[in-house]
Amino acid sequence: MNVGPANIYWFLGLSGSGKTTLSRAVAEQLRARGRDCFVLDGDLLRGGLCADLDYSDEGRKENLRRAGELAMLASAQNFVCLCAFITPYQSTRERLRERLGTLFHEIYIKCPIEVCMERDPKQNYRKARQGRIVGYTGVDAPYEPPVDPNLCVETDLLSIEASVQLITEYILHTLPAKEGS
Amino acid sequence: MNVGPANIYWFLGLSGSGKTTLSRAVAEQLRARGRDCFVLDGDLLRGGLCADLDYSDEGRKENLRRAGELAMLASAQNFVCLCAFITPYQSTRERLRERLGTLFHEIYIKCPIEVCMERDPKQNYRKARQGRIVGYTGVDAPYEPPVDPNLCVETDLLSIEASVQLITEYILHTLPAKEGS
Repeated sequence: MNVGPANIYWFLGLSGSGKTTLSRAVAEQLRARGRDCFVLDGDLLRGGLCADLDYSDEGRKENLRRAGELAMLASAQNFVCLCAFITPYQSTRERLRERLGTLFHEIYIKCPIEVCMERDPKQNYRKARQGRIVGYTGVDAPYEPPVDPNLCVETDLLSIEASVQLITEYILHTLPAKEGS
Repeated sequence: MNVGPANIYWFLGLSGSGKTTLSRAVAEQLRARGRDCFVLDGDLLRGGLCADLDYSDEGRKENLRRAGELAMLASAQNFVCLCAFITPYQSTRERLRERLGTLFHEIYIKCPIEVCMERDPKQNYRKARQGRIVGYTGVDAPYEPPVDPNLCVETDLLSIEASVQLITEYILHTLPAKEGS
């Protein structure tokens, strides 16, 4: 019914690396250029659609499966999808790539764990180090750096503005032209 | 980040009543008027996001819970949501209304079961009557007519074009004006 599907840009990286901030700011840039965007992140999903899931490996796997399916639904309606999820395991990324195919673009929001812990916007690193949260990525659960991301942005070195600009440009270069434009 | 939330229009009625056909045609009308729409229906969800669910009462309940949560996510991003689901139980509609509040509009796509069985676009009524599908709404599972829908359209009496026009007008009347328009 629309031209589609649109691409899916998966922002992945540690908590505190800047995924949600950047994905929302990039969405604003794309919208200003007339592209409809659908944004998703862990907190949005955990608060509703995935409120029935826990943080076990199984719960995380199902959370990301649903995120991928949701992105597919939105992509099929020609919404550019910007998804911000830690996505700690390479196997999950590979499953997403299998399911989403060439629509799927990995944008690695790279930031040393020490810097993320310093930022700690949700105070979750503090809680994890105090043992009040168990299985927190980067503290007592692993983060496997992506093997072959499509784009990598180092947010400890670049300003937010510069990161937003880089990612927006990457997306505009990889997005098929909109019908009628 | 956007103005929002936008309304959620829930097309409900028997299989074969015309929910999906009408919701997609209405979406085209709204898009032509510059409103971004997000469409959802049972088949779209069952094929991916809800592929893990069965057709038991529990499975249906969870399917509709996820549909509602997904509509909320899209609505929060200012997409007008058109959701086409049989939604056979009044209790489910009430749960949706509790969760979605005044955003939630029930559009009853009303059609006698005999006409739906005649149309039988997916051949599911035939299979249900042959016992090859169990628990099919209207055959061996109940359909509770909505108690107090916001709009009711009788698709055995009206043409598709007339139904699309009625529903589109209802939506345009109930939708808050878009920012800048």
